Amino acid sequence: MPKVSNKGQQMPESPIRKLVPYAEAAKKKGHKVYHLNIGQPDIKTPEVALEAIKNNSVKILEYSHSAGFESYRNKLADYYQNHGVSVNAADIIITTGGSEALLFAMGSTMDQGDEIIIPEPFYANYNGFSTASGVKVVPVISTIDEGFALPPIADFEKLITPKTKAILICNPGNPTGYLYTQEEIQQLAELVKKHDLFLIADEVYREFTYDGDKHYSVMNVPGIEENAIMIDSVSKRYSMCGARIGCIVSKNKEVMTTAMKFAQARLSPPTFAQIASEAALETPQSYFDEVISEYKERRDTLICELNKIEGIKVATPKGAFYCIAKLPVKNADDFAQWLLEKFDFNGETVMVAPAAGFYSSPNVGLDEIRIAYVLKKEDLIRSVEILKEALKQYNN
Amino acid sequence: MPKVSNKGQQMPESPIRKLVPYAEAAKKKGHKVYHLNIGQPDIKTPEVALEAIKNNSVKILEYSHSAGFESYRNKLADYYQNHGVSVNAADIIITTGGSEALLFAMGSTMDQGDEIIIPEPFYANYNGFSTASGVKVVPVISTIDEGFALPPIADFEKLITPKTKAILICNPGNPTGYLYTQEEIQQLAELVKKHDLFLIADEVYREFTYDGDKHYSVMNVPGIEENAIMIDSVSKRYSMCGARIGCIVSKNKEVMTTAMKFAQARLSPPTFAQIASEAALETPQSYFDEVISEYKERRDTLICELNKIEGIKVATPKGAFYCIAKLPVKNADDFAQWLLEKFDFNGETVMVAPAAGFYSSPNVGLDEIRIAYVLKKEDLIRSVEILKEALKQYNN
Ligand SMILES: Cc1ncc(COP(=O)(O)O)c(C=O)c1O
Ligand SMILES: Cc1ncc(COP(=O)(O)O)c(C=O)c1O
Repeated sequence: MPKVSNKGQQMPESPIRKLVPYAEAAKKKGHKVYHLNIGQPDIKTPEVALEAIKNNSVKILEYSHSAGFESYRNKLADYYQNHGVSVNAADIIITTGGSEALLFAMGSTMDQGDEIIIPEPFYANYNGFSTASGVKVVPVISTIDEGFALPPIADFEKLITPKTKAILICNPGNPTGYLYTQEEIQQLAELVKKHDLFLIADEVYREFTYDGDKHYSVMNVPGIEENAIMIDSVSKRYSMCGARIGCIVSKNKEVMTTAMKFAQARLSPPTFAQIASEAALETPQSYFDEVISEYKERRDTLICELNKIEGIKVATPKGAFYCIAKLPVKNADDFAQWLLEKFDFNGETVMVAPAAGFYSSPNVGLDEIRIAYVLKKEDLIRSVEILKEALKQYNN
Repeated sequence: MPKVSNKGQQMPESPIRKLVPYAEAAKKKGHKVYHLNIGQPDIKTPEVALEAIKNNSVKILEYSHSAGFESYRNKLADYYQNHGVSVNAADIIITTGGSEALLFAMGSTMDQGDEIIIPEPFYANYNGFSTASGVKVVPVISTIDEGFALPPIADFEKLITPKTKAILICNPGNPTGYLYTQEEIQQLAELVKKHDLFLIADEVYREFTYDGDKHYSVMNVPGIEENAIMIDSVSKRYSMCGARIGCIVSKNKEVMTTAMKFAQARLSPPTFAQIASEAALETPQSYFDEVISEYKERRDTLICELNKIEGIKVATPKGAFYCIAKLPVKNADDFAQWLLEKFDFNGETVMVAPAAGFYSSPNVGLDEIRIAYVLKKEDLIRSVEILKEALKQYNN
């Protein structure tokens, strides 16, 4: 029998996958499970996008241009310009989700055995994309005590080798909710210029910032036009995760020419989803205002409730819709499984993501979980009540 | 300035990309260009699929399961069973086009430096997927003189090294139109069993066979259940290229578990496109009967007309909708460019794909072109007239 690849064996499984059968079993027992574990928002997709799909006049569902509809790329460039990021359609390739944009970015900039430095905890699928690309992830630890701020630049410099090709940040961060300051981005910019590295910024949560904090894009830093690569997506912006539309953006022509070769090999991004994404650009500002204020309230509620539990430590997120909470338990993995397998509070329980899966260093974050505040306020309050009761019982 | 990857530099460009600017220039001059160069059919997408999209009731466009809708996978398994391929939903992962299925198949079975043997000429993007996966393509030549039949098994065996992990075939073939016989598939089956290799069969044209010839799937060969991986797609079957839905199919559990990890990293295939693809399974048989008889007529017309041109040699395709034609020219690349740049016949010209791009061996197929018969009969007849006139002028 032929054997699967080493790469395939090394491909990590999703950090919550192990828990899925336990969640299913809990539901079978009749328990209600609050899902704090995934970044699938419950927010409605903008009407204007859904209407465009219903009213589409496609007769032959053809391949689109490999870089995506030209009309969409033009309007998307306008969108970025209106949001203070000055890019043209030529700097944009439409991809099948931010996921594919990440794969194109890695494939275009790194070879087998090259290294990419990523502040951890980080979006777990960066591991998968790196393994698939033959790239080695070199983590630099950010801590809950510092609110997951950018680690000192010296910590990055210690890790740079001749194999280092890029630094990857997620801003705002999944799973940390941290929003890098302009000064931090500036520090990274100097670092990548000094060492001739790419700076890949995953900005799929760019619109999700609270408290008036402004998102500062790597595309806005003068002098690193050739280093900066932005990853974006419609998944979270318009609650259109199932569309599978994202983009890779860079002013580095060589990078774009290279990414385009990857794009051509897979022919085109999905056509219906592009129709929806192009239409979504007409979403009224009121939609975003409502969504942001909803998330802000959810965040405030969640953090406030969590802080009432003794022994929990949480870094208040400034963006995205996740936070990391440090629990008074030894092993959050075990606790998360126990929540589903052994526990219920009047027939209800919660599913959380153990944070160890978001670290690439071994034995870090073992007592942490990631919570996605993608549920209604009442449900968040109830979820934290359940968590509180669970911790009490678990620690007895 | 940081440099792009070697891999990225080695990524091949599409064999027709070089010609695109010339085609655009020809159109700007007011010339009509007949596109014989791409596999984008002009056939209408089934109404039942388009209606499902118009009538969709999505309110929140969510990620689907990473393996695709369960309902779709179940119905797709039924489809295969009705077509004599006995597989279950568990043997199927829905992918973003056959393209992604090919990437998953390579990633799941091969590591950096491993070798894959492919009869050439082959679908040009196999080069791109191989380069992206760090895999080395080892071509085995099939010839127009043999009608692109399977090369002798001894030719394969000569090429097998400890690095060889898989054989990839396209059946029916793009660009050859060749349909492997049951006996040829059987020979390959014995070969992969003997050497413990994977047999990856790209069957995206599986329904497109003519003259009553039956397609014989690698999934139907007893004894190679652990070796066989099938690649499929809705792109051509339903003229739904823009949907971006395909699948990887195998009874090898380890392969499926591994492919699933790649699938999870990229989250999910596109939701709208899955809705359309699931509905497309209800397409009435009359649709296929019409499409197949349309392609058969086109093929017959094309081959008949081509054979009227002196000095042209063509292998009659038995499936798919391409054929390779050997022209009385030294360099088909130069000829194809000349057609667009320097030639017109009463304001009309044709765009063809030089076949050298479908060979991985250097200096093979230099006098060959690939013709896609995706145009109406009248247009095909006119195209060949133009080609005939062009050859006359070019050779003077
Ligand atoms: C940080 C981050 N990057 C990228 C993605 C990929 O998103 P998509 O492929 O849906 O655009 C996600 C999805 O959750 C994410 O959280
Ligand atoms: C032989 C072959 N395989 C795979 C593909 C990829 O098709 P898709 O990704 O649209 O399913 C094509 C498209 O032309 C093809 O000709």
